[in-house]
Amino acid sequence: MAHIGIDLGGTKIYGVVLDHGRVVGEAKRKTPVRGGPLGVVDAIAEVVEQLGGGAAVSGLGIGAPAAVDPDGVVRKAPNLPGWDEPFPLGEAVSESLDGLPVAVDNDVNVGTLAELRLGAGQGAANLVGIFVGTGVGGAVVLDGEVRRGTTGVAGEIGHMIVRLGGRRCGCGSRGHVEAYAGRWSMEKRARKLAANGRDSLLLELGRQRGRITSSAFAKALSDDDPVTVELLDEAVASLGAVIASCVALLDLDTVVVGGGLADRLGPQFVARIEGAARDELFIKDAALKVLPAALGDQGGAMGAALVAAEAPEQVLQPAQARQ
Amino acid sequence: MAHIGIDLGGTKIYGVVLDHGRVVGEAKRKTPVRGGPLGVVDAIAEVVEQLGGGAAVSGLGIGAPAAVDPDGVVRKAPNLPGWDEPFPLGEAVSESLDGLPVAVDNDVNVGTLAELRLGAGQGAANLVGIFVGTGVGGAVVLDGEVRRGTTGVAGEIGHMIVRLGGRRCGCGSRGHVEAYAGRWSMEKRARKLAANGRDSLLLELGRQRGRITSSAFAKALSDDDPVTVELLDEAVASLGAVIASCVALLDLDTVVVGGGLADRLGPQFVARIEGAARDELFIKDAALKVLPAALGDQGGAMGAALVAAEAPEQVLQPAQARQ
Repeated sequence: MAHIGIDLGGTKIYGVVLDHGRVVGEAKRKTPVRGGPLGVVDAIAEVVEQLGGGAAVSGLGIGAPAAVDPDGVVRKAPNLPGWDEPFPLGEAVSESLDGLPVAVDNDVNVGTLAELRLGAGQGAANLVGIFVGTGVGGAVVLDGEVRRGTTGVAGEIGHMIVRLGGRRCGCGSRGHVEAYAGRWSMEKRARKLAANGRDSLLLELGRQRGRITSSAFAKALSDDDPVTVELLDEAVASLGAVIASCVALLDLDTVVVGGGLADRLGPQFVARIEGAARDELFIKDAALKVLPAALGDQGGAMGAALVAAEAPEQVLQPAQARQ
Repeated sequence: MAHIGIDLGGTKIYGVVLDHGRVVGEAKRKTPVRGGPLGVVDAIAEVVEQLGGGAAVSGLGIGAPAAVDPDGVVRKAPNLPGWDEPFPLGEAVSESLDGLPVAVDNDVNVGTLAELRLGAGQGAANLVGIFVGTGVGGAVVLDGEVRRGTTGVAGEIGHMIVRLGGRRCGCGSRGHVEAYAGRWSMEKRARKLAANGRDSLLLELGRQRGRITSSAFAKALSDDDPVTVELLDEAVASLGAVIASCVALLDLDTVVVGGGLADRLGPQFVARIEGAARDELFIKDAALKVLPAALGDQGGAMGAALVAAEAPEQVLQPAQARQ
């Protein structure tokens, strides 16, 4: 039976119908900038309508850019307009869709689940998904299951330390992977270098859009812009180091690398990360695979549908479970 | 029903009888320096005899200082004399004890299991055990179970990277936790500093024994020896950083710190590690506890007995399972 998956992002809401692992329908709309959580609930209902309505599927899953409690409450979500307080998204969406079972999980968890079941990570038992975009997100699969940790926020691989006391991260701490490999941090670093007299093609490319996009990084890299080469060398080294650390800790067989920047820089970028990780592995001949994500932009919504398909009934219907 | 647990170490073999979580008997002997794996099998049988024989218990567990396959094969064990090849320890000990069910696991895994079930980590769902001694070992518990990873070598927290490109570790790579917090690495560092003109009380204390013991570190620290203070500051910072990384990745509720050096330096040392970890936490108010191990020297053998008690029948009797 089919399930709907919703990828709830800061700029768009993208939905798919997933039937036996295949996408058989898709729809999207912009994330409303007004209306807060209730506006999002209405927008999700609209996308579901475009997909043929909730009556045609057995359940709906949502991947949200925030920590999510097991009962579908989405905590503070800085990337969603007006989402300053925890909100019971699962329950509210279920109610707006005549009681359709709804499961909610973190967007990176669902993206990793999709890669595990239907993408690059198929067959892996112990896997980490790393998503390199504005920041660096991640999720952990051990013994075939996504591990959420004690409070549901496991997988913050971008905030693991690779250089104690090193470069300052967007979160305020120092030496995190994200401080070297997140697009926002790299843009900040490029601007700082330019202010100190080392101009780069990145700033020129960024002038038009007001920010330095993943495409700008790809273009500047292909032009051998020295600052870009240096920044991406540091990103590769940091990602390689954190992968080696994760393998030492968890004895992984597979790492999947996706996200906007990684997708745009392509398989060569991921191959470089694999090389850097291999150089730092504790057990040098470990049978580790570092693979580019295979599902691209669709992964999040596909994974959300999988969460709905795999979730136990009590998670799907929080409102009823509480009665 | 009672189980025997054996802590197989490089210098001694220590065994306990564990009955409903309590140690009701103990025995030990030196690890034989000749005879290789078969000599160890005989020595374990002797310890079992001292403990009242195998007939009085339902099973036996062994914690070994090496990677252990699920069927009880102990791979290359550098700390056991003549153990240069994988050897089916579980099967051999079972045969020498008239078919008594035998389970074998890595010594750090069993030590962590003991702290989880009977020691400082009771009630934890997601826990990392860190054992600071000659080196820095560890084990990972997620959702209440020790996680072994794809090839059974998960938990190498000592070989996670905290300073990419930093100090060289005993394993040859750079920037690992163990390079800053393992006793062997700290001794090497103290000797190097002395060779460069910064003598320390550590070397004086180490002269008699030919090596710098945990007690020597404790004595030199209590005397405010500047090199010792500096080395232990670095150890604390590195352990704090790696704990913060593990919490970011796994959303742990508990970290237990044990091992010869940590036990000798006492709760103040562990409290300092907790402080360093807290300074580096991604989610600053995470409800993390960093606790001193509670079971001391007995933990390994107790954990080995627990492995025997908890292991499924097919793991306990590999020889029969294969027929």
